[in-house]
Amino acid sequence: MTVITLTTDFGLRSGFVGIMKGVIYGIAPQVKIVDISHAVAPQDIREGAFTLQRAVPFFPAGSIHVYVVDPGVGTQRRPLAARLGDHYFVGPDNGMLTPFIEEAEQNKKSVEFVHLNNPKYWLPKVSRTFHGRDVFAPVSAYLASGVSLNAFGPRITDPVLLELPRPIKTEHGWTAHITVIDTFGNLATNLPAALLRGWSDIRVHLRGVEIIGLTESYGHKQPGDLIALVDSEDYLEIAVVNGSAAQKLGAAVGDSVEVVYR
Amino acid sequence: MTVITLTTDFGLRSGFVGIMKGVIYGIAPQVKIVDISHAVAPQDIREGAFTLQRAVPFFPAGSIHVYVVDPGVGTQRRPLAARLGDHYFVGPDNGMLTPFIEEAEQNKKSVEFVHLNNPKYWLPKVSRTFHGRDVFAPVSAYLASGVSLNAFGPRITDPVLLELPRPIKTEHGWTAHITVIDTFGNLATNLPAALLRGWSDIRVHLRGVEIIGLTESYGHKQPGDLIALVDSEDYLEIAVVNGSAAQKLGAAVGDSVEVVYR
Amino acid sequence: MTVITLTTDFGLRSGFVGIMKGVIYGIAPQVKIVDISHAVAPQDIREGAFTLQRAVPFFPAGSIHVYVVDPGVGTQRRPLAARLGDHYFVGPDNGMLTPFIEEAEQNKKSVEFVHLNNPKYWLPKVSRTFHGRDVFAPVSAYLASGVSLNAFGPRITDPVLLELPRPIKTEHGWTAHITVIDTFGNLATNLPAALLRGWSDIRVHLRGVEIIGLTESYGHKQPGDLIALVDSEDYLEIAVVNGSAAQKLGAAVGDSVEVVYR
Repeated sequence: MTVITLTTDFGLRSGFVGIMKGVIYGIAPQVKIVDISHAVAPQDIREGAFTLQRAVPFFPAGSIHVYVVDPGVGTQRRPLAARLGDHYFVGPDNGMLTPFIEEAEQNKKSVEFVHLNNPKYWLPKVSRTFHGRDVFAPVSAYLASGVSLNAFGPRITDPVLLELPRPIKTEHGWTAHITVIDTFGNLATNLPAALLRGWSDIRVHLRGVEIIGLTESYGHKQPGDLIALVDSEDYLEIAVVNGSAAQKLGAAVGDSVEVVYR
Repeated sequence: MTVITLTTDFGLRSGFVGIMKGVIYGIAPQVKIVDISHAVAPQDIREGAFTLQRAVPFFPAGSIHVYVVDPGVGTQRRPLAARLGDHYFVGPDNGMLTPFIEEAEQNKKSVEFVHLNNPKYWLPKVSRTFHGRDVFAPVSAYLASGVSLNAFGPRITDPVLLELPRPIKTEHGWTAHITVIDTFGNLATNLPAALLRGWSDIRVHLRGVEIIGLTESYGHKQPGDLIALVDSEDYLEIAVVNGSAAQKLGAAVGDSVEVVYR
Repeated sequence: MTVITLTTDFGLRSGFVGIMKGVIYGIAPQVKIVDISHAVAPQDIREGAFTLQRAVPFFPAGSIHVYVVDPGVGTQRRPLAARLGDHYFVGPDNGMLTPFIEEAEQNKKSVEFVHLNNPKYWLPKVSRTFHGRDVFAPVSAYLASGVSLNAFGPRITDPVLLELPRPIKTEHGWTAHITVIDTFGNLATNLPAALLRGWSDIRVHLRGVEIIGLTESYGHKQPGDLIALVDSEDYLEIAVVNGSAAQKLGAAVGDSVEVVYR
C-alpha cells in the first residue's frame, strides 16, 4: 500500500482535484490518496513549499507527493519526479522542493531527479493547462505501481531552487519572517525555537506591537491575548488566544518579525 | 476494515488534516478515513458536538471518531478515548461527547472512558499545540489496529459534560434554539418533531418574523418563501426555499425560536 | 474495486458529505470514494451538469457517480439510477445527466435508466429532505456490491432533459457562453476549440473588452494580461495570467462571449 498526497492551488470547487484522483485510481487502484491542501494561494510556490515542508515528515516512508502550483504550465518549465531520502515527489520544476533539497543536503540523504519526458506514462492526450491531470497524476500512479524512477525520463542534477527567506541575526536578536498563516489566523515564522533556547526574557515586535515573553500554549492566557509561543513544528509563532492574530494585526505571509533579547 | 472519522476546526488550508491522515496511515494502512467536517467554528465545542451528533449514527458499528476542537491543548485538560455503545471516540476531554454520553445513559448502553497517558501510543515527540497529530491520530490508528482501550491509560468515570440548550415548555408551545446552520443557510433547531405531532396549526416566531404552519419539503413552496419543516434528523427546521434563512433573518447558532400552538 | 464519486451542493461544513460516506462504507467497505465537488452553487443543476461532464471521462470504466443537487427533494421528482456507456449514475431525475445522455446518443452507446422505487435498498427510514443519505448513498453502495440495476426499480425511458446553452453561429463567428468559473477565476466557455481551427486571427468580446488572438498557455504572457486560450477540455477559455478574469471582468456563468473571425 502506497500513499499518494496531493498539494495544489486548485481549490475544491471545480472538480480538478477529483479528476486527478480518477486518473490515479484508474492506474493504481490499490493506493491511498491524501489531500494535504488545495488552498495554497494561487501560483504561490513559496506558500506551497512551506505547506509541503510541514506535512511530508509525517507521512510513511515511500509516500509519493504530487504538488501542482504551476504558473508555468504549458511553457518550457520541466515536469519532474524526484526521490529525496525516503520520499518521492512529482510536479513542475519550479523550486517548490527547495526545503527538501536543502534538508537532504544537510543530512547527506541520497537524492535523484528525473525530467519527465516519456509520454508512455502520461495520458494519451496532454493539454497545455492541466498537467496535474495529464502528466503528474498518471506518473505518480505508475510510480506507486512499481515503475522505477529512471523509466520516466533522464536524470537531471539542476532542479530549480527557490530563494527562501531565512532568519537574520541582528545585534540583539533575530529578524524572522511569517511563513504560514493557518485557519485560526496563527502566524508561523521561520525562526527555529532552538535559536530561542535559554532566552527567558524576549520581546517580539511586529506591525507596531510588542509581545513580552513566550507563553506555553494557547490555554495559558486569556481569550483575546496576543501571545508568542513555540508552534507544533518548533518554530516561533504569534497567536491570539481563541482569535486571529492575522486579522488583529493585519499580518501577511512575508512580514518581518523582530525578536529582541533583553 | 475500520472507519476512522475526523471532525476538527482546522480548516483545509494549512495541511493539518492531511498531516493527521499521514500519521494514521503510517500506523494503520488498512483503515478508511472519512472527513466529517473541518469547518467547525474555531474553538466552538458546542457546534462540534452537534455536528458529531448528527453524523455518528450513520457510520458502521466499530467506527472510531477523532474530534479535535481543542482550545485547551497544552494545558491540564485530559486527552481521552471512549467507547460509547458501538462507537469509539478519541479527543480532548472537553464535553464534546456530551450528546453521546446522554444518549448512552438513556438507552443503557455500556460506556468506557480512558485517560490517554501512555506515551507508547503517541508520536515520539509531542508538541504543546497539535495533539491531533501527536496524540489523537496515533491513538486512533492503534485502536483500529486492535490495541485494547485499556492499554492507552487508566479508566476514568468523570468526563467533562457540556451544558447543551434544551427546548423549554412554554404556556402555548416551546422555546427552541438554533443548533446548526448548514451550507444552504437552513436553520436546524433542537426541537424534536415528535413534540409537534398532531399540531395541525403552529406558528413559529424568530427574529421578528412569523411562519405559519409546517411545509412538507422545500419543493412544496415557491423560491424565496420562508418555511418551517421537519429536517432529516426529525427536528424542526427553518428554511428559505432555494435561499438562505440564515442570511434573510440574520440568524445565528444559539438564537431562540418560539413555537406557538393555536 | 469500484470507485464511487460524489458531486453535491452540500458544502463541507455541516458533515452531510461525511454522513453519505458513512452510509456507503457501512454497506460496501471495499469501495474507494472520490469527491468531485461539493461546492456546486446551491440548487444549480446546470453548474452541476458541467462539473460532472468535465470529470467523469477521467474515471475508470464501471465507476458510480452519485450527484445530489436536488431542489425537488421530497416532492414527486423521481430518484433514478442509470448506466450510460461504461459509467453508472445515481441521483434525482432533474436533468443533471443531460450532457452524458446527449453524448451517449451521439456515440450510440447503450443506456439504461431505472426509477428507484424499491425501498429494500434504502435506509430503513427515509427523510423528506436528505435523499443523498437515505436513498442515493445506499443504492450506490449496493450497486458497487454487485446488485444489478434492475433490482432497484422499473426501467424508464423518459429522463428529464435540461436545456443547455449551445454556441450559436453568427455572421462572422460564434456566440459562446461561460459555463464554468474555476478557483483561479478562469472562464470556461461552451465553444469547442475545433470550431476555431485555422483561425489565425480571432477577436473575443465579452463585457465590453476585446481580446486579440489566442495565447498558447498562461506562462506565454505577462501577469495581469487578459488572454483567450484553449482550455484543458479543448474549449475556448478566457483568463487573466496569475489573476482572476471573473473578478477583472465581473463575469458570471451564462454570460455570452462573442468570437469574431477577421
